[in-house]
Amino acid sequence: MAQAGVTRLLVTAMPNVAWLTGFDGSSACAIIEPDRVTLVTDRRYADAAEVLAADGGLTLAMVEQTYDETLAVLIRAGDEPMGVEAGHLTVQRQRWLAATLAAGGWRPALVPTLDVIEAGRLVKDAWEIERLREAGRLISAVAVGVLADLAPGQREQEVAQAVEAGLRRAGFTRPAFDTIVASGPRSALPHGRASDRLMVAGDLVVLDFGGVYGGYCVDLTRTVVLGPPTDEVVRVHGAVAEAQQAAIAAVAPGVAVGAVDQAARAVLDRHGLADRFVHGTGHGLGLEVHEAPRVGPARPATYPPMSGTVVLPDVLVAGMVVTIEPGAYLPGWGGVRIEDDLLVTATGAERLTRVPVMLSVA
Amino acid sequence: MAQAGVTRLLVTAMPNVAWLTGFDGSSACAIIEPDRVTLVTDRRYADAAEVLAADGGLTLAMVEQTYDETLAVLIRAGDEPMGVEAGHLTVQRQRWLAATLAAGGWRPALVPTLDVIEAGRLVKDAWEIERLREAGRLISAVAVGVLADLAPGQREQEVAQAVEAGLRRAGFTRPAFDTIVASGPRSALPHGRASDRLMVAGDLVVLDFGGVYGGYCVDLTRTVVLGPPTDEVVRVHGAVAEAQQAAIAAVAPGVAVGAVDQAARAVLDRHGLADRFVHGTGHGLGLEVHEAPRVGPARPATYPPMSGTVVLPDVLVAGMVVTIEPGAYLPGWGGVRIEDDLLVTATGAERLTRVPVMLSVA
Repeated sequence: MAQAGVTRLLVTAMPNVAWLTGFDGSSACAIIEPDRVTLVTDRRYADAAEVLAADGGLTLAMVEQTYDETLAVLIRAGDEPMGVEAGHLTVQRQRWLAATLAAGGWRPALVPTLDVIEAGRLVKDAWEIERLREAGRLISAVAVGVLADLAPGQREQEVAQAVEAGLRRAGFTRPAFDTIVASGPRSALPHGRASDRLMVAGDLVVLDFGGVYGGYCVDLTRTVVLGPPTDEVVRVHGAVAEAQQAAIAAVAPGVAVGAVDQAARAVLDRHGLADRFVHGTGHGLGLEVHEAPRVGPARPATYPPMSGTVVLPDVLVAGMVVTIEPGAYLPGWGGVRIEDDLLVTATGAERLTRVPVMLSVA
Repeated sequence: MAQAGVTRLLVTAMPNVAWLTGFDGSSACAIIEPDRVTLVTDRRYADAAEVLAADGGLTLAMVEQTYDETLAVLIRAGDEPMGVEAGHLTVQRQRWLAATLAAGGWRPALVPTLDVIEAGRLVKDAWEIERLREAGRLISAVAVGVLADLAPGQREQEVAQAVEAGLRRAGFTRPAFDTIVASGPRSALPHGRASDRLMVAGDLVVLDFGGVYGGYCVDLTRTVVLGPPTDEVVRVHGAVAEAQQAAIAAVAPGVAVGAVDQAARAVLDRHGLADRFVHGTGHGLGLEVHEAPRVGPARPATYPPMSGTVVLPDVLVAGMVVTIEPGAYLPGWGGVRIEDDLLVTATGAERLTRVPVMLSVA
């Protein structure tokens, strides 16, 4: 908050509210002030909020009419400017709050800030790491089971159903995103949600799924061929596996995220597949399935950081958790992606997911 | 757009992009101009976007670096002000676009607008209604099956797993929200996600789940007691069922949403339960599981509509699809909620969900 130049901050992004207060419902805000943190929620969550307030030393404010009316009252109760989360607050809420506060005679400003809470979430603490480790173990077991049962004659949606039932049984609250089962030519779609396609012998199958465990997200991908692989499948699969190994080997504290991405990209380039790798190498994991840091090509800064911005590091730091998931996609033919989750440690990386990188099943 | 005072509009909310263009991936924007609609997406969705562009007469723009850099180029290509969706665009993206456009010498303004596309989505067309009807039939069948199997000795999470497997088998893409299975005292939580609680004879069980079918959301709740009900359960369940019937009977074109809410509230008031009904009576359904219209108490307008706002009607219109879901929650004891989905017709309402309102199972 000091870096962003504010002494008060209105937190409206739900994962940020959850991280700050432990609240796990779907509607709440928080206000951070020098002497208190206020959790703002509505009557549907009254009981849960009272427990959190008592346990966590939070002040509690219950919404009577609308969230924004309650927020205007709380903001007006102080004389200092109020930081807002510019990366999450909508233009409309900002306009409404500013107009309402001005109409009520409040003179300080609403100050746009960026990544204040995200900067705190970037490095996981011991409690979070233990959850992510357990989630990684559990999702690996689900993947091993699903891969063992994969066979021609199944529909993609049946496989997705098996994945999601496995996640539930393992203790996950929900899938972290729409389960991807993309077979045959559909495997060339980097985001091929499960369809009713019947899988046949010789198909490449990309299986990419995630789960939310105690609020924390993990994410895993394997690509296998149903039956004996062709030479081209062996070549592309081998190149992606090698690219993933190279990127994993590069993960260590102090290494630029762009260098990790480049490690994967250089391998695919050597195999003539660089232009088939149409996304970044990975992303952070935590309360969101896509969070900082982005593990992708370094981007030229087109614009100096705006005021109120906390600049997130572009190097890995011990305690960060990231996916490493290079891929290669040949439209009309098929695609391969291999993804694991890694914890950056003091000396390198610890794998949170452990599933054999198989080329072929069934 | 004329009501909002713009001739160009940048659409950034994904359900709005999907409604306009048919795009069903996770990242895209659209720009509406007098002579064209441009779909803006990235290389992961290149194939799908080309099909949509060809079929729908859309112009296609592919993101090379970031979405906002591409948007700045497209906005700068015209001389007219550009409307933005103030209810969705974040303060940060608005700031960045405005600063970048100004730095590039573009002089017109970014104009905040509200509910332009939402106003179009409010009334469903024949194709959407057919999808929602089918989704209503399918979710009803899932509910009947799950309720028939409900018994003491099961855990809430097992029931949620059965719900979600049933949704998949029925053809739903995913649950529309975290499945609620709230039993015993947990049934007093209006948003009690399934826990590992073991259900016992005599428990009230609130089962509230939704599914996304071909992009469209339906949502259904039943509350039953496991075994013979107590007098108090009979009383509260009866009151909520009566409140729901009263609200359903009130649904017709031209009726104020506040009057539908009041119909439910009056019944609960007569049963001494008005202060136990801590949420609105319902909400619209469509590409989002919570969309306009809100079926809740009329709110005093605390503020005149801001410039750029398309004012949504506060009366029901034929073609709207809404939930009717009153509830009563007695902390420490339990709660009851009953929810169905209705299509507003030319003369009244058509039920999209049909599941017996049972008091007791097992």
